[in-house]
Amino acid sequence: MKLVCSQLELNSALQLVSRAVASRPTHPVLANVLLTADEVTSRLSLTGFDLNLGIQTTFSASVEKSGAVTLPARLLGEIVSRLSNDSPITLDLDEAGQQVQLTSNSSSYQMRGMPADDFPDLPLVESGMSLKITASYLVQALKATIFSTSSDEAKQLLTGVHLMFNGKSIEAAATDGHRLAVLNIEDALKLDGINADNHDDISVTLPSRSLSEVQKLLSNLKPEEHVSLFCDRGQVVFIAEDQVLTSRTLEGTYPNYSQLIPDEFSKSIEIDRRSLVSALERVAVLADQHNNVFKLTTNSSSEEIKVSADAQDVGSGYESLPAIIQGENITIAFNVRYVLDGIKAIDSDRILLKCNAPTTPAIISPLKDKSCFTYLVMPVQIRS
Amino acid sequence: MKLVCSQLELNSALQLVSRAVASRPTHPVLANVLLTADEVTSRLSLTGFDLNLGIQTTFSASVEKSGAVTLPARLLGEIVSRLSNDSPITLDLDEAGQQVQLTSNSSSYQMRGMPADDFPDLPLVESGMSLKITASYLVQALKATIFSTSSDEAKQLLTGVHLMFNGKSIEAAATDGHRLAVLNIEDALKLDGINADNHDDISVTLPSRSLSEVQKLLSNLKPEEHVSLFCDRGQVVFIAEDQVLTSRTLEGTYPNYSQLIPDEFSKSIEIDRRSLVSALERVAVLADQHNNVFKLTTNSSSEEIKVSADAQDVGSGYESLPAIIQGENITIAFNVRYVLDGIKAIDSDRILLKCNAPTTPAIISPLKDKSCFTYLVMPVQIRS
Repeated sequence: MKLVCSQLELNSALQLVSRAVASRPTHPVLANVLLTADEVTSRLSLTGFDLNLGIQTTFSASVEKSGAVTLPARLLGEIVSRLSNDSPITLDLDEAGQQVQLTSNSSSYQMRGMPADDFPDLPLVESGMSLKITASYLVQALKATIFSTSSDEAKQLLTGVHLMFNGKSIEAAATDGHRLAVLNIEDALKLDGINADNHDDISVTLPSRSLSEVQKLLSNLKPEEHVSLFCDRGQVVFIAEDQVLTSRTLEGTYPNYSQLIPDEFSKSIEIDRRSLVSALERVAVLADQHNNVFKLTTNSSSEEIKVSADAQDVGSGYESLPAIIQGENITIAFNVRYVLDGIKAIDSDRILLKCNAPTTPAIISPLKDKSCFTYLVMPVQIRS
Repeated sequence: MKLVCSQLELNSALQLVSRAVASRPTHPVLANVLLTADEVTSRLSLTGFDLNLGIQTTFSASVEKSGAVTLPARLLGEIVSRLSNDSPITLDLDEAGQQVQLTSNSSSYQMRGMPADDFPDLPLVESGMSLKITASYLVQALKATIFSTSSDEAKQLLTGVHLMFNGKSIEAAATDGHRLAVLNIEDALKLDGINADNHDDISVTLPSRSLSEVQKLLSNLKPEEHVSLFCDRGQVVFIAEDQVLTSRTLEGTYPNYSQLIPDEFSKSIEIDRRSLVSALERVAVLADQHNNVFKLTTNSSSEEIKVSADAQDVGSGYESLPAIIQGENITIAFNVRYVLDGIKAIDSDRILLKCNAPTTPAIISPLKDKSCFTYLVMPVQIRS
């Protein structure tokens, strides 16, 4: 393998695929990145793969001699990132296939690699169900849900986001057992099945870690660009331009979350979103000192709500906010972090909080929204 | 105590004095900040003090009723920083002197305080030796030396910077036993002794932590502004405008570092500073994998130096740099971090490295400089 490429392209490719390189590899080769150079296509491909998540990217290079090798991802990444972007980089693998010589300007580095054959194959399924989605819709769906996944590995399926694609719409949902975020976008996709008869709905749960990387990958695309998605045998592959991301799926039946959302609400509160965020961030300073709980009390006669926290020995405080209140007055308590997460994920000026009783689920949603975002949060029981 | 003040001023005062509040206080009151309001002067003063380092700042406020109290620094700081800067803040201490009510706009917080009498007095010595220094000179002296102090608390005096003021010049020095940084500025100060007969030299060693805060405090001043310094009974007080910083001194006789600096050098190397920083930062990627050591080899015939590192099983590399070389060729090895620290502290385009042998101290200095900066670094012995 011998090639010359640009520092900028090699550096950004390394930064990208390194996100799929295991931080604590179970096998030495998994700490490496796979480099594959092709004389015929004049392209260099880089792959990082931790057996769960894989990222591959390809870019143009002057390939003098085809070949493949794996190199330590961190070492290579740190050296390349510090090289000048004025000079091209030459990579040259020795005859024994062990040492790579990297030269640029007056810099010269030798790195010990491991054979490309030792590197596990990316599960590049391009069969089974296939879809084409506008990148910006998928980004929107992930941004609205990933934060609600559980970080508790023992909770398996709940560490992922559940994605459902049917003929027209995309629905993403995530819950950690205390709150649930659901985003539904109509007309988000056209089914682009390889097999025209194969118009089944796709329903898959993917680890939040993989989806965070999908989100970053897609955020670099133009909003109207498309991403292809293939789903087969416990693996999902996202293909966007020259970049490929593979992820294993989380197996099992995702909870039937729609039954958790009450059909009717006796009380509704309309509030300015930014004012509520600021007020809750101050109240959270006290709530965080104790049990993270704040109380929301409505006063329909003064058309105000009060959010308050009491950290006992330390102090207490409240904030008053104007609100449009419907239904009887209520006092209801929540985990302040859960509520803040939800209202921060909303993109509209005003939000609606709907509830029935201090012990039944409440819903937060944007007042007006093209997509349909629903954030369910369980209240905290308080002694009155 | 009752007063109204601006959110911006209270917030920046809290951020400032909080740096002197103990992170792990030995007594509960030391987690607090002292607030003292004076009706006569219409000023509010804030103090943080961890018994070693103290910071006090004063600003204008509408004081309705004089008084003093201490409040939890972190809690108060976090709430005030999140309040809107559009509305003034009212602080009101109750009759019992226990609870402070903070109100701003539609926010209302109650915090439990501790009596001001429980707060230790700042050692505000304004006797003994006194000096007036241009702030920018002191900042320059600290920036050039603090990084060379030892972080090993067992090394006592070496955890501090040694400051020497005589009639005209200021000299700052710091060493951790492996390297030594000395900055000498002539004409930096006029002695401003309270007692005109008292023209002794001041020589004092102060903890690097205190001096880092002095550096931050002074960096906010205009460069030509002055700072007053008082030194007495194991305490130093810096006074700049409305801000006061006190620090205990480190007791003992600071090593006679000037005798460590060789009088003559048989070899000198002149190099472009920025190129050397970039080259060493790349070589450091490899050096850090092994023992942090890099080798410098001069080649006077090609007018080049080579800096290289060998991380054995991982890889190796070198960088070539043009240099003006005087004296015989040499190969000398250093800790790459020590050398990088030193050349980063230099502010000129070209630097001089002077040495005699691979086992005797080397000196790095700017090629041209009004102030006199000397960075001594011990080589690492290598098997050839």
